[in-house]
Amino acid sequence: MIDVAVTGAGGHMGREVIEAAADRDGVDVALAVNRTSVGPVAGVPVEDEADLPALLAERDPDVLVDFTLPDPSTRYVEACADAGVAAVVGTTGFSESQLAVLADAAESVPVLRAANFARGVAALRRAVREAVAAVPSYDVELTETHHNRKRDAPSGTALTLLDDVDEVREERDSSPDADRVHGREGEQPREDGEIGVHARRAGDVTGEHELLLAGNHEVLTLTHRAESRGVFAAGALDAAEWLVGRQAGEYDFEDAL
Amino acid sequence: MIDVAVTGAGGHMGREVIEAAADRDGVDVALAVNRTSVGPVAGVPVEDEADLPALLAERDPDVLVDFTLPDPSTRYVEACADAGVAAVVGTTGFSESQLAVLADAAESVPVLRAANFARGVAALRRAVREAVAAVPSYDVELTETHHNRKRDAPSGTALTLLDDVDEVREERDSSPDADRVHGREGEQPREDGEIGVHARRAGDVTGEHELLLAGNHEVLTLTHRAESRGVFAAGALDAAEWLVGRQAGEYDFEDAL
Amino acid sequence: MIDVAVTGAGGHMGREVIEAAADRDGVDVALAVNRTSVGPVAGVPVEDEADLPALLAERDPDVLVDFTLPDPSTRYVEACADAGVAAVVGTTGFSESQLAVLADAAESVPVLRAANFARGVAALRRAVREAVAAVPSYDVELTETHHNRKRDAPSGTALTLLDDVDEVREERDSSPDADRVHGREGEQPREDGEIGVHARRAGDVTGEHELLLAGNHEVLTLTHRAESRGVFAAGALDAAEWLVGRQAGEYDFEDAL
Amino acid sequence: MIDVAVTGAGGHMGREVIEAAADRDGVDVALAVNRTSVGPVAGVPVEDEADLPALLAERDPDVLVDFTLPDPSTRYVEACADAGVAAVVGTTGFSESQLAVLADAAESVPVLRAANFARGVAALRRAVREAVAAVPSYDVELTETHHNRKRDAPSGTALTLLDDVDEVREERDSSPDADRVHGREGEQPREDGEIGVHARRAGDVTGEHELLLAGNHEVLTLTHRAESRGVFAAGALDAAEWLVGRQAGEYDFEDAL
Repeated sequence: MIDVAVTGAGGHMGREVIEAAADRDGVDVALAVNRTSVGPVAGVPVEDEADLPALLAERDPDVLVDFTLPDPSTRYVEACADAGVAAVVGTTGFSESQLAVLADAAESVPVLRAANFARGVAALRRAVREAVAAVPSYDVELTETHHNRKRDAPSGTALTLLDDVDEVREERDSSPDADRVHGREGEQPREDGEIGVHARRAGDVTGEHELLLAGNHEVLTLTHRAESRGVFAAGALDAAEWLVGRQAGEYDFEDAL
Repeated sequence: MIDVAVTGAGGHMGREVIEAAADRDGVDVALAVNRTSVGPVAGVPVEDEADLPALLAERDPDVLVDFTLPDPSTRYVEACADAGVAAVVGTTGFSESQLAVLADAAESVPVLRAANFARGVAALRRAVREAVAAVPSYDVELTETHHNRKRDAPSGTALTLLDDVDEVREERDSSPDADRVHGREGEQPREDGEIGVHARRAGDVTGEHELLLAGNHEVLTLTHRAESRGVFAAGALDAAEWLVGRQAGEYDFEDAL
Repeated sequence: MIDVAVTGAGGHMGREVIEAAADRDGVDVALAVNRTSVGPVAGVPVEDEADLPALLAERDPDVLVDFTLPDPSTRYVEACADAGVAAVVGTTGFSESQLAVLADAAESVPVLRAANFARGVAALRRAVREAVAAVPSYDVELTETHHNRKRDAPSGTALTLLDDVDEVREERDSSPDADRVHGREGEQPREDGEIGVHARRAGDVTGEHELLLAGNHEVLTLTHRAESRGVFAAGALDAAEWLVGRQAGEYDFEDAL
Repeated sequence: MIDVAVTGAGGHMGREVIEAAADRDGVDVALAVNRTSVGPVAGVPVEDEADLPALLAERDPDVLVDFTLPDPSTRYVEACADAGVAAVVGTTGFSESQLAVLADAAESVPVLRAANFARGVAALRRAVREAVAAVPSYDVELTETHHNRKRDAPSGTALTLLDDVDEVREERDSSPDADRVHGREGEQPREDGEIGVHARRAGDVTGEHELLLAGNHEVLTLTHRAESRGVFAAGALDAAEWLVGRQAGEYDFEDAL
């Protein structure tokens, strides 16, 4: 049995995590916080995030699960380091200096951070790396689709996939990182090696990512689609269970699979 | 039997039209021109486009088929009007003033102009109009994919589809034309009613258009894909056969179906 | 405010309907029954379906919503006819004789029956009819994907789409109904006019339907995807609200849109 | 410079190979045969296949490229073995005893045989193996689409992909080969571990293969699409160039990449 603290308990992902924990044997929600005042979620009272350091000390959870925004998330992970609590971080969009703070925290506690906690996305990343290695000269375009309330573009998962492509190309051909072109309009021919990145926003789509590779009269598409946020909550709890008891350091979701 | 004149005979589409005409009973290529000097195409000698007015007078074809660029295309259609030759125009990207010249020409000869001569695109347009009318409040995103040498974005067919969406929305709800957003990057939330337009350029893809409609936990996609340029050449010759003998005026490909 | 009775309250769709009703203003769940004993759903106690006739008489709901199986569903609708309660039926797979019983019931009460209560599926049907009418000679293939626990194939919605194709073809060319080929294996060339029907079963996919039209080096695909069963529950409640107060007779979901 | 012999020169793929060779530096068509009498292809005279053994002896090509049918193909490869000519075989559908004949021939000459000569299909196979290894418990369904004149189902490439899935599952979990279900109709629930195989036939689609993996509210699709048969001809010539000068033995297209 592990005890979990959940931040952003009033947000979409926070709720999913608390509900998934309620349905799972071996996981207890010891503590839930939110920036604004909200009622209980799945029977768990939600407390003020300003009190997080004190609450961590008092309740002593094994691991914190965080899907919030870069600023608060950075503070939460610092609080974890102080309290000796492991942290699973699904927040995306950190600045370089925030990432440095997370790295510092990982000197004292285990910190697992990932842009996406779907097993299938881990599978997609492996498939993408293989395909790019097999046809490294083919043109690459990336298209992602999310609900119409998503504020940032492209998604954190899209950025991870783009980094994967860069990495494979560099290993094979010492190619530099690809230019990323966000939309094309008017007279804008494709430059060699660039990657077009297309962020579609529509309805309440949970999340879809497609990498397209084309050349020589043929097209490959590698696609992942999540049908509910429960995928991500389940993966984050898998990661939390795996992380408890590890030594301090930075981990990725693939380490936990 | 109809006699056809073909412009841009050295270009991709010009060649396709000449080859398709060679394979088709009832169509003869009476005349082919190009801006630069090129050898015969499918056995047809290619002459200098500067001589087009004289050649039209001399050979007296029934109809001209043009897939070139806005500037020369406008001149060719004027020459058709002077010579009393019908014109099928597949060129896209005309300015307002160029369109006015085409309209003038259509006072004296029949002019059929379309962004796309695939039957399937006509079918897609009808399907799109029905779907938008059925779920007018759903978010719309448009994605098109073409070969990496295409210089302009989005495609003429994409623009036609966007106009179709605007028209249906206006009929139903008196909605104004949608803002068209070409790519999203950084903090860029979706505005109500806007349409995201995504131009993918990769390999030698002939042409694909996808309209996505989403709302209420469901997604509709309506997609057309051409597998070879022969689709467009065949449609242009269908249009040419239909156009010969019509009265002067402006026509669309759908009129010919 | 309308009062709704829900059958199959312990099943996936029954639960969705009760939860959707709880979230919706203007709808009250007056009564929920199930064949086996289950606890309350969204706070609504679930009673024994054997008592349905008595419960309908006692609680006098305005409309019953049913997503169960053909045998019980037929009995429920008969009970509605006796009690003067309208019925919304999402069950599929009725035999001819069961359909006759439903038609009888519709002599005394309004009965709305549909294979699919997604607005988007209604939009897909309209788009499919337009596209088939535009390219009636193109080959048609239908692919549907559902979760791995679905027992019947193809889906009721797939059958509706196939009927739509038959109807359009008959109107245009007096074509007979298409042969429906379920999978191809070994030496099995395509016969002219046949429709291949492909039922994919995998994971917990909510439901996807794709109609493919191909000919002349081009391919059209018209696709609908539901991301959660909530789509169907919402549509069924829309239909219920529309149905209350109508005169006796048989209705389709499209009537309610 | 290598000299190539082409069989089935009057068929779709034979023509593509001859045309591709005409466009390629370093490759000469020394010899083309066909079962029925046809005129020259791309300027190369087509001779009687009955004379192949004599023609191979006389013209002494470096390598034969064959896309025909199992019976003649087996004879052609035997003739190659006798004449000391390497063979690239794109024919599919061989029986066990025919495969034994090919293996015998490969004792004396190099024989490279593949179901698909698209580079992208090799990339797809690698991506499929990675993805299946990453989520081995997910359900697998395979869908392939080809033109309406294709007689056999599923395609040779589909069978290769299914073998790949079996192989990965066996390596990981010692799983037995999956049952392959060709179409589902009526009451036919999915059995654990089975793979649904769906052969769509429509229009003149060159060839598309899609592997779908689903579980845990997520879906992965890995797709390859060829837009023209030129892809396969180019790959076969790549294979031919690689094969000339190798030692006797059996090779796969992946060896040549």
